[in-house]
Amino acid sequence: MAEKITPRNVDYSRWYTDVVLQAKLADYSPVKGAMVIRPNGYAIWEMIQQNLDRMFKETGHVNAYFPLLIPESFMRKEAEHVEGFSPECAIVTIGGGQELEERLYIRPTSETIIWSMYKKWIMSYRDLPILINQWANVMRWELRTRLFLRTSEFLWQEGHTAHAAYQEAEEEALKILKIYKTFAEEYLAIPVIAGKKSEAEKFAGALHTYSIEAMMQDRKALQAGTSHNLGQNFAKAFDVKFQDKDGKLQYVWATSWGVSTRLVGALIMTHADDNGLVLPPKIAQRQIVIVPIWRGEEEKKQVLAYANEVKETLGKEFTVILDDRDQYKPGYKFAEWELQGIPVRLEIGPKDVAKNGMVMVRRDLMKKEFIPKNGVLETVRGTLERMQKEMLENARKFQQEYTHIVDDYKEFKKTIEEEGGFVKSHWCANPECEAKIKDDTKATIRNIPFDREEEKGKCIICGSESEGRVIFAKAY
Amino acid sequence: MAEKITPRNVDYSRWYTDVVLQAKLADYSPVKGAMVIRPNGYAIWEMIQQNLDRMFKETGHVNAYFPLLIPESFMRKEAEHVEGFSPECAIVTIGGGQELEERLYIRPTSETIIWSMYKKWIMSYRDLPILINQWANVMRWELRTRLFLRTSEFLWQEGHTAHAAYQEAEEEALKILKIYKTFAEEYLAIPVIAGKKSEAEKFAGALHTYSIEAMMQDRKALQAGTSHNLGQNFAKAFDVKFQDKDGKLQYVWATSWGVSTRLVGALIMTHADDNGLVLPPKIAQRQIVIVPIWRGEEEKKQVLAYANEVKETLGKEFTVILDDRDQYKPGYKFAEWELQGIPVRLEIGPKDVAKNGMVMVRRDLMKKEFIPKNGVLETVRGTLERMQKEMLENARKFQQEYTHIVDDYKEFKKTIEEEGGFVKSHWCANPECEAKIKDDTKATIRNIPFDREEEKGKCIICGSESEGRVIFAKAY
Repeated sequence: MAEKITPRNVDYSRWYTDVVLQAKLADYSPVKGAMVIRPNGYAIWEMIQQNLDRMFKETGHVNAYFPLLIPESFMRKEAEHVEGFSPECAIVTIGGGQELEERLYIRPTSETIIWSMYKKWIMSYRDLPILINQWANVMRWELRTRLFLRTSEFLWQEGHTAHAAYQEAEEEALKILKIYKTFAEEYLAIPVIAGKKSEAEKFAGALHTYSIEAMMQDRKALQAGTSHNLGQNFAKAFDVKFQDKDGKLQYVWATSWGVSTRLVGALIMTHADDNGLVLPPKIAQRQIVIVPIWRGEEEKKQVLAYANEVKETLGKEFTVILDDRDQYKPGYKFAEWELQGIPVRLEIGPKDVAKNGMVMVRRDLMKKEFIPKNGVLETVRGTLERMQKEMLENARKFQQEYTHIVDDYKEFKKTIEEEGGFVKSHWCANPECEAKIKDDTKATIRNIPFDREEEKGKCIICGSESEGRVIFAKAY
Repeated sequence: MAEKITPRNVDYSRWYTDVVLQAKLADYSPVKGAMVIRPNGYAIWEMIQQNLDRMFKETGHVNAYFPLLIPESFMRKEAEHVEGFSPECAIVTIGGGQELEERLYIRPTSETIIWSMYKKWIMSYRDLPILINQWANVMRWELRTRLFLRTSEFLWQEGHTAHAAYQEAEEEALKILKIYKTFAEEYLAIPVIAGKKSEAEKFAGALHTYSIEAMMQDRKALQAGTSHNLGQNFAKAFDVKFQDKDGKLQYVWATSWGVSTRLVGALIMTHADDNGLVLPPKIAQRQIVIVPIWRGEEEKKQVLAYANEVKETLGKEFTVILDDRDQYKPGYKFAEWELQGIPVRLEIGPKDVAKNGMVMVRRDLMKKEFIPKNGVLETVRGTLERMQKEMLENARKFQQEYTHIVDDYKEFKKTIEEEGGFVKSHWCANPECEAKIKDDTKATIRNIPFDREEEKGKCIICGSESEGRVIFAKAY
């Protein structure tokens, strides 16, 4: 609480780190590239887990747990996969005091170990589909790290499903992307663009990769979740076949999909402000803080009795903090709870008690409003619902404001450089044009949006025909 | 379902493995010593997590996440700790394609990394207590492994708390042990003996270790949870001091405590039978299965309509499976759900419909009982409550039956060898006597029970004075 948060317009990157450290969401660890997720940050991850887990289960998925360590030979079985992940792995070479015969990779993702098990479990079409999810830690060695957004170790969920037909796998991959989009928008209040990745940007070993892409307050893009149709690649690498209804042996079809603790970073970068975190009500473990204000014992007694009544009323539906600490002044408490992003603050002083009401402040708006004590539960409930909705709407407005339609490459470069945000431009589907743009501007194709308009055009690089616009942006 | 479970009296060890594999609770993985927790087994772990997590939070604890990898130098800072854990660690020597400057240990437990962070976070008595828990995977290289009971990698929770005084740490360690005991008995229906570990058996780096000890059906003991008062050992190793109310610098007091996926093994070994798993109702994600019985389409229609009504009624309070699969006979379904341990089975055929009732079978008793459809929710609720209670009572009777009071060392050896179970004998508190017993019989002191009677006696080995009996047993 002692330090000041660097304002966003002074240094966005420092602002982000200040918010994460001062709100005690995470901290640097003594292990290079790894972070500690502190209780305030982990509480957000728990809310993400709870809600996504429920959504996965409602669609027939179950959880399981597979080993952390993957034999090197497994990593090598799928050619693109090993090429994509091998350079960024941490490798165990010693176990129980002895040099290991085969080196073991700490999972960067679990396709290989899981498909080696699916080979044991899948014989017939009756064993399909398998709809398994895993909540786990994974590791990808990173040189340049950033709290939550890019760390060597991170927490995530990884779904791995097995199906009898291409079409089923494709439907599964799209169903999950829809869950991710719904969750991002309705819970995190982060508007996202759902679409398909280009060939150059897809997952190592996938047939198609789908993603949801968000825009941060510095107008850079952040990939918030991916879902892959893996085709038969892993089934072939691990020789996983099933007997179909006609008795014929076929390779199994697969998907995988994941979101990670990166979402906590996305949440901060979408909603936080110069006073600290701003939590959408549905993702806050504690929705309301009451700060009582008094001078002297008489006032204290009266105000606290009143505040406790309010707490009890609101406690029927919400988690409420009553900050009755003696050693801190109200202003200090306001700042502390603002830093932590508690959605609604109620201030109660002797005058409020006399008027049978209280002052309410919505964290995102920071405007004071007097509300009556009668009906306080309904008032606060309505406020939280509106806040949830308006946080999404405001973030969507921001995203739309910084989404540019550009048809000229000079303007494209200028926009990426000076404005940032999403640039919608025509692209001929040639990876060489995509690579040139990346080389020139560092912008990548975020995805080919599902809901793009059919609009013939000319590739912004080579002028060849294009079927529609794709989204370019610099990304985290 | 095709294979038969080896009966317990033929080969207890094979019986255990058969239950785990055939009920699809876990499977062997291609990585030596690591297992795969399959969805049926993971569902049990989820119930353990949910309930313990709630109990931890109700007592003021919060969750966080610390890095998987621990620098070798950290492991070496607490002398007993490194000696205890170092030989059984998996070590990362390569990261991102390069040999690492400092080797990194996969956490066998997280005291060292956590106390290196507490050093950053603790300045004053105002920062205390810290009551943090972590749900995580850990690794201890094992040569002889057993599904759930002893695996190189396992899942657990590890609490790590920091306090301003010895007494507070001591109270915390005991409070947690009480939570473990309550959870083991009221949820898992596993009766446990709570007590203090001997010096020889305590945790590497602890002042005192407390444990709960259970008895398996083969009469061997299983340590089901431990809680440690770490004194100031880790605070000293990591130089963690706080300024007390008088402005003086003092070392911080610590506890740590954990239970693991081993509890799933304990659950199986306490309650399962020759037909498979038996789940206490409070730990079953699905409490009831309805198996409809019909011949021909007319009966099917009638029976299913009736079964669906029953499902809907019970579904208000419980999770109910209606097994209406066409391709399997009722007997096959009975066996399958018995194997999975679903607490209550309801069988509904045309005659039951005619009599407006159904047949109920409690998984632990396997006796058929006709119950009326009227009031089925109350009947089943009562049955599940009784089942939960009686499973604990029955396990407690078994434990008492195989608890022996022995004062003669010849008889002691014979009892340990032939009878197994717990042996309550006098011990003088000398580690040499303890070591001799272990050498002679493989039995160890499980713990010094909190509730032992004050009873002067003579050490069973050396004849010196003893303050009371301790519990000896061979253990998993």
